[in-house]
Amino acid sequence: MQRTHYSGELTEQQIGENITLKGWVQKRRDLGGLIFVDLRDRTGLVQAVFNPAISKEALEIADKLRSEFVVEITGKVIERQERQKNPNMKTGTIEVQVDQLTIINGAKNPPFMIEDETDVSEEVRLKYRYLDLRRPQLAKTFKMRSDITKTVRNFLDTEGFLEVETPILTKSTPEGARDYLVPSRVHEGEFYALPQSPQLFKQMLMVAGFDRYYQIARCFRDEDLRADRQPEFTQIDMEMSFMSIEEIITLNENLMQKIMKDVKGIDVQIPFNRLPYDEAMSRFGSDKPDMRFGLELIDVSEIVKDSSFKVFTGAVEAGGQVKLINAKGAADGYSRKDIDALGEFSARYGAKGLAWLKVDAEGLKGPIAKFFEGEAGAALQTAAEAEVGDLLLFVADKKKVVADALGALRLKLGKDQGLIDESKFNFLWVTDWPLFEYDEEDGRYYAAHHPFTMPADVDELITSPETVKAQAYDLVLNGYELGGGSLRIYQRDVQEKMFKALGFSEEQANEQFGFLLDAFDYGTPPHGGIAFGLDRIVMLLTGSTNLRDTIAFPKTASASCLLTAAPGRVDNGQLAELGIQVAAKKQ
Amino acid sequence: MQRTHYSGELTEQQIGENITLKGWVQKRRDLGGLIFVDLRDRTGLVQAVFNPAISKEALEIADKLRSEFVVEITGKVIERQERQKNPNMKTGTIEVQVDQLTIINGAKNPPFMIEDETDVSEEVRLKYRYLDLRRPQLAKTFKMRSDITKTVRNFLDTEGFLEVETPILTKSTPEGARDYLVPSRVHEGEFYALPQSPQLFKQMLMVAGFDRYYQIARCFRDEDLRADRQPEFTQIDMEMSFMSIEEIITLNENLMQKIMKDVKGIDVQIPFNRLPYDEAMSRFGSDKPDMRFGLELIDVSEIVKDSSFKVFTGAVEAGGQVKLINAKGAADGYSRKDIDALGEFSARYGAKGLAWLKVDAEGLKGPIAKFFEGEAGAALQTAAEAEVGDLLLFVADKKKVVADALGALRLKLGKDQGLIDESKFNFLWVTDWPLFEYDEEDGRYYAAHHPFTMPADVDELITSPETVKAQAYDLVLNGYELGGGSLRIYQRDVQEKMFKALGFSEEQANEQFGFLLDAFDYGTPPHGGIAFGLDRIVMLLTGSTNLRDTIAFPKTASASCLLTAAPGRVDNGQLAELGIQVAAKKQ
Repeated sequence: MQRTHYSGELTEQQIGENITLKGWVQKRRDLGGLIFVDLRDRTGLVQAVFNPAISKEALEIADKLRSEFVVEITGKVIERQERQKNPNMKTGTIEVQVDQLTIINGAKNPPFMIEDETDVSEEVRLKYRYLDLRRPQLAKTFKMRSDITKTVRNFLDTEGFLEVETPILTKSTPEGARDYLVPSRVHEGEFYALPQSPQLFKQMLMVAGFDRYYQIARCFRDEDLRADRQPEFTQIDMEMSFMSIEEIITLNENLMQKIMKDVKGIDVQIPFNRLPYDEAMSRFGSDKPDMRFGLELIDVSEIVKDSSFKVFTGAVEAGGQVKLINAKGAADGYSRKDIDALGEFSARYGAKGLAWLKVDAEGLKGPIAKFFEGEAGAALQTAAEAEVGDLLLFVADKKKVVADALGALRLKLGKDQGLIDESKFNFLWVTDWPLFEYDEEDGRYYAAHHPFTMPADVDELITSPETVKAQAYDLVLNGYELGGGSLRIYQRDVQEKMFKALGFSEEQANEQFGFLLDAFDYGTPPHGGIAFGLDRIVMLLTGSTNLRDTIAFPKTASASCLLTAAPGRVDNGQLAELGIQVAAKKQ
Repeated sequence: MQRTHYSGELTEQQIGENITLKGWVQKRRDLGGLIFVDLRDRTGLVQAVFNPAISKEALEIADKLRSEFVVEITGKVIERQERQKNPNMKTGTIEVQVDQLTIINGAKNPPFMIEDETDVSEEVRLKYRYLDLRRPQLAKTFKMRSDITKTVRNFLDTEGFLEVETPILTKSTPEGARDYLVPSRVHEGEFYALPQSPQLFKQMLMVAGFDRYYQIARCFRDEDLRADRQPEFTQIDMEMSFMSIEEIITLNENLMQKIMKDVKGIDVQIPFNRLPYDEAMSRFGSDKPDMRFGLELIDVSEIVKDSSFKVFTGAVEAGGQVKLINAKGAADGYSRKDIDALGEFSARYGAKGLAWLKVDAEGLKGPIAKFFEGEAGAALQTAAEAEVGDLLLFVADKKKVVADALGALRLKLGKDQGLIDESKFNFLWVTDWPLFEYDEEDGRYYAAHHPFTMPADVDELITSPETVKAQAYDLVLNGYELGGGSLRIYQRDVQEKMFKALGFSEEQANEQFGFLLDAFDYGTPPHGGIAFGLDRIVMLLTGSTNLRDTIAFPKTASASCLLTAAPGRVDNGQLAELGIQVAAKKQ
């Protein structure tokens, strides 16, 4: 029989109708000669009742049912007796009086229950991913993921964007993260690389005059994985010609507003706040600050530099900084032991120590209070806007360490002290990024974003690589980087200067990116773009903290698929055909 | 300035408006002190006029313009003088009187003209793909490609399908085509494979209760490429639970009808015709017959088996066939030399010879006419429904050779004789496929579709592998396979029988497909699906014969990307990290 309805979509409107459902046995209960079964499909549950007065035969078959059996039932929708109505169940006022039951497929007892909450290890969940995905919470996540891409597509279609697929088998480029390589069978000794992003292809599409491109694009990075990284991930990737940063930002604010409205039913205000990179680092110790709460970093280097506290003066003299966070009203709540724990926490981010002061009615208290009596102490209190009951936490170190340690401490305190409104969605643009990062070890500059980013000032590219800014922008949501983009270089001479600043010889530049330089010779429009991490957007909008819950078949931290047992050994014949072998020392 | 319009979208409605356009110089003409420029963007062309009476400055700048320069112009839309109107140009009744011109980027003379027709080699086009893609015809192709996927997505969304992404880094499976492999850095000596299709993952989603899945999915096959093959290609991939073949077919007929309506504006009739595989092979010598014309194959084995023509009788005695095609009215048009050419053509498909007879008023004529005088000749004429002026073409050989040779000859004759209505879109389902193909060399059966296809009869799987049918269906359009699908096995014991029939040991089956067998233990619904080749659909609907024209950045027959020069050599350091080396003998 053909299915007439989904279980979870039945309502009192169907009362009296004969229907056919297909799905899984969630739970079975025997009571007073009747059998009750909660039947599940992807839409939810409905109760089916087997009653000997309706069908003895169906009841007999129902006696064989166990959890996760696949069944087809036909019967009549009836209203439940008043006292049996279940207000906690969407279909709790009705049930299906079954007159026909077919067992389509049996099921062994599953290794864990199909419920939202499960305490089974993630390893078991990933091995039996097909059972894990039956859990309503995950099913909901993938519905939302599908809804988000639908909204993105509809919005970008309306804005005149063309969806174009770019290659997965492409060329390895030395800049950026580590590539996944694919040996070529036809070209012995040569390799394709899986793309870290469709960057150069989307730029080529702009050269081709496509004007506005987008793609929900799979990208790959062979990096050591953290909790919020996967070897393959999905980007909402776009590129557009002839548009200014302002136009690009506005378009993407409209997109985000639409996603939030369509998927979460939430109105977010636009324009979003903006913060230059330098200010984000200085005020929040982060290039992706969570702006839902204060606890800003306050620079007191000038105030403490002449004190007699050597830790502070030493840091300033060495060219570093002293900064504090004022944990409002936290003086009483944090014991010396608690503060020691915060010190250990800061140490993970490189801080050699966490100095502190408490403010009481008589002034500053704590082990270093003696260094800040009188004017210096008053100046500190003023700078920190300190009041009685506040706890001041200091890190003195190189600029980067101060930012990292206090930035992390700020987030921790924000969470611990309940300062974060978890219902808020706070979007923020971080702008004016540095164009380069200097690598001490390699003794050279690397592109902070990528080597195709337009500098704010072309001359400074050569004259002041350490301070030149990029025409780049990142979008941050609640302290997570959703994505970023930039205007791109579209003139050959500027791109050549860029490669030079990165230490490429002319030959290297031509070998790796000759086709790009050539393309600039044939009428390239100004263009720019952006890419958002779809997996991370889904994670944030579903309120999850586990990126793997947003990917149907994710990989573990060691890049394995526990379901299919990938990667795996292959036939030597396959390797021979590819002209490669596993290196002897590694076998 | 911000762009106000696209060139090709300007109409007489904008007459009098001041507008700003951005685009490329298609052509420049100097005439009577004025400069005329055709300005191109992705929507088309409009004429811009530089007139010293409007702006001397703009005219001076315009004097520098050459083809493919990128410019911004501001000016007023005016109606052209009557005699200057160009009915061959969409915007031919108007022009833009320019008062401001900015050259945004220059351009060297391109290696070929940006026009629909180009006689430059495909190699040059692919190397400068960013210029090739500027050609209006290709731009139109990618617009249509985007429109097709949009229609597919909207249709499947409405039908309750969920779009889910499946992994690109997955496990190598020995059945099927050759895999692209990706060495794992973390798991030394192990490899991922790029998916030939999302087959097992979509089945897992059905086990997970997702009910209806789709994906516009990238797939990979490391096969030697033909004109209509690419190493990576895109499938419209779906899978659904609890649906019969009839329901799946109807749903996909509705989808195809919608694509044809939305994208081509053509109403196609549903239901489509259906043909069992055996009948398709016997009547058309093809498993994907072009049904827009007749020229069916006629089996005359019974008639000729007792003749004295040894070629025919020998073929029948050896278990083969003798079949003919009646090329209606072709007797006069085909000289002996022409027929010899047809014979050479058939030889490419394995035919050892092409026998022929012409029909004139006196009867059969030709070298073999003497063998078919009297009754046998009359019977042949009756079977072939031969009339005066017809040409009968015979192949006598093994069944497969007869089908291949006459099937190909049928297509050639259909084209040569102009029997095909090129404006027709003829959809056809081919059903009742064999489950297995026997490989003489390996001495074993292979799955004709894939090893997860439901047999029509489970017992025959073991008892009659040579004749057992599959619950499979292919959709054919004008002689091209658009895609195919099947109901899948969803019971462990049936799947185990299938692996056994394929010669797998229990251990092999478990090592390769253990997770699938396990999944069947936990409540798997009946399910089936289909996948269509998107590239091929685009090719057929754009009327192209070159699959590469449907892919933005395609690869050549040797799987190279001429734009980026992929694949390429990589650093030895990269290989060392992966624990592989290029095999000595191949270096």
